[in-house]
Amino acid sequence: MTNNEKALQLHQQWHGKIDTIPKCPVKSRDDLAIAYTPGVAEPCKVIAKDPEAAYTYTIKSNTVAVVSDGSAVLGLGNIGALAAMPVMEGKAALFKEFGGVNAFPICLDTQDTEEIIKTVVNIAPAFGGINLEDISAPRCFEIERRLKELLDIPVFHDDQHGTAIVVLAGVINALRVTGKKKEDCQVVVNGAGSAGIAITRLLLTYGFKHVMMCDRFGIISESYENLNWMQKEMCAVTNLEKRTGNLADALKGADIFIGVSAPNMVTPEMVQSMNKDAIIFAMANPVPEIMPDAAKAAGARVVGTGRSDFPNQINNVVAFPGIFKGALEGRARQITEEMKLAAANALAGLISDEELSEDNIMPYAFDPRVAQAVSQAVKDHIRETNIRHD
Amino acid sequence: MTNNEKALQLHQQWHGKIDTIPKCPVKSRDDLAIAYTPGVAEPCKVIAKDPEAAYTYTIKSNTVAVVSDGSAVLGLGNIGALAAMPVMEGKAALFKEFGGVNAFPICLDTQDTEEIIKTVVNIAPAFGGINLEDISAPRCFEIERRLKELLDIPVFHDDQHGTAIVVLAGVINALRVTGKKKEDCQVVVNGAGSAGIAITRLLLTYGFKHVMMCDRFGIISESYENLNWMQKEMCAVTNLEKRTGNLADALKGADIFIGVSAPNMVTPEMVQSMNKDAIIFAMANPVPEIMPDAAKAAGARVVGTGRSDFPNQINNVVAFPGIFKGALEGRARQITEEMKLAAANALAGLISDEELSEDNIMPYAFDPRVAQAVSQAVKDHIRETNIRHD
Repeated sequence: MTNNEKALQLHQQWHGKIDTIPKCPVKSRDDLAIAYTPGVAEPCKVIAKDPEAAYTYTIKSNTVAVVSDGSAVLGLGNIGALAAMPVMEGKAALFKEFGGVNAFPICLDTQDTEEIIKTVVNIAPAFGGINLEDISAPRCFEIERRLKELLDIPVFHDDQHGTAIVVLAGVINALRVTGKKKEDCQVVVNGAGSAGIAITRLLLTYGFKHVMMCDRFGIISESYENLNWMQKEMCAVTNLEKRTGNLADALKGADIFIGVSAPNMVTPEMVQSMNKDAIIFAMANPVPEIMPDAAKAAGARVVGTGRSDFPNQINNVVAFPGIFKGALEGRARQITEEMKLAAANALAGLISDEELSEDNIMPYAFDPRVAQAVSQAVKDHIRETNIRHD
Repeated sequence: MTNNEKALQLHQQWHGKIDTIPKCPVKSRDDLAIAYTPGVAEPCKVIAKDPEAAYTYTIKSNTVAVVSDGSAVLGLGNIGALAAMPVMEGKAALFKEFGGVNAFPICLDTQDTEEIIKTVVNIAPAFGGINLEDISAPRCFEIERRLKELLDIPVFHDDQHGTAIVVLAGVINALRVTGKKKEDCQVVVNGAGSAGIAITRLLLTYGFKHVMMCDRFGIISESYENLNWMQKEMCAVTNLEKRTGNLADALKGADIFIGVSAPNMVTPEMVQSMNKDAIIFAMANPVPEIMPDAAKAAGARVVGTGRSDFPNQINNVVAFPGIFKGALEGRARQITEEMKLAAANALAGLISDEELSEDNIMPYAFDPRVAQAVSQAVKDHIRETNIRHD
């Protein structure tokens, strides 16, 4: 049986990947008199007087909505809400397993931006955080921005920020390996969707000065036609040298390539044209922009992919569970840029100088220190900056 | 410590009454490759081609949304979505414990009818059924009717139909005890909100001919002012003799009193004015319309309440878990009047002729046969009438 057949068979056996289980005993009349009527009226009355008490008496303190409209699902594209369910259930399972955070899939039977925003606002009372997932660009930017304005709980589009955090963590450690300085590096981000844009923004926030974005038509600049509004905004802060050309042109003399694009976009010749000790994150799934052995043979020093069967896996699962765990425990109103930087630094810091090598820049996804370190970094930042929710 | 203090303390300890737990292993890279990427793409693709496959591969087959806007919560009134959370979490816990059905609280930060309808339609993909809860009348009627039209999954307002089913089950057995015939009985339903109206409708569907509704101002008839549209509709099928007066007038010569109203509404004198072998369901919580001993002393033969510390507890928990279990397993598109009748008959039938007595008309809530019998009756009805979902 192939892995795909096995996946289908197991999904059929599971019949859904999430169970909702009572945390309170409901086995006797006495139990019901406490957990349900009449006892339940007591916490209700307290919350009615003081909404903050919901964090004490309800699931809100530890529950995240995994929200998708199914418009940009993994490699599958716009398959809609219902077909996106297995992904969102899986994500909810990862939240619990890796972060101890309860999560529930909310798959929306609408792809209208205003409808999505209204719906998420309407269902927010049960949740302590909103994880947006697999929503297509540029709608995802508008939806996230508006929800952050409207809600007083963290809203986090994982395809953007989760990816950006793990990429930055990997980049930080790749700089440690190569001795390159962020201020001097030429960075090329290939792919100008939600992930590429968020990576670019976080790299700039971190202190990179020279970042170019490319898409399949070439280097993105103001002269480029058919940019969406977010890509236009990016032109003000990227490609400040106003270079033009295709990806091969962009990579000449570059130090870092970050691919969130498509298989086999990068040739060995392109890698050879990059600076010495080139850093390549080829994260297209399942086939990367260039295979690690080819990139290494062409002179790359550090190579990461999205895959678990090569060294240096760049995988969101080391970020989002700890981010939400920290934001919920610290009662953050928002997940800020600074919290993302703190998370990336914490991830990078899990690799000691002794452990660090070209083939060991990322912590292992199943290392239990990961969510702990990320959540602690987020909480420390919340405490230091006094941006607590209450 | 009082029970109320204990309830508050335990709710604080629980920190929410529902956990979301992975049903799939996510402990290794191999696990993730099946339950998440890349394996998860397989069920997604199947569902994208055939939406019905969501019932095979996702939680939809066994998950109910417990939806409330917090506008009419137990004895607490309009306390809003957030303060209603402990009730909805408790309800979700009961769904799992009694019916094996997963349920998740959806508390809506809006009390606008159209917004509620849109929001529930938008989040429906994840769910196999919608349990409406604690939504005030008459909005609840409109919301339920519209959602039934818009969705192809069962929508069930438990305050209405769950209550109606358990009341009918009790009435069926009270008729067995007293030998009264439904066609001949005069029935008075006191309380003209969602529960009272649904009880009245189901009694009429079952075959009662003479039902009067009262509210605190008296017998409801067409001459009565300030009726909402649903109460006006009820005038066409109730109080066909066009009687007027107060509750005391209504009860003269009545056989059955069903109270979903307020404490101490019924006096011993009123019970004395009823027909011989009167049946009294005094379900106001926590203090009934008349205490059982007083009702008995005044001549009532069968007395039920909502309380667990008296005989004949009339409690929704014997209905809704089995109803949804049956509707989900049988893949019903709707929960029909006939399914409610089948459920009530199944509940009543759990009390054998030998067990049946004035003080034993209702099955015990914790009897494991209850959800089984109810769900089986619902499924049998679905099979017999061929109203399966697919």
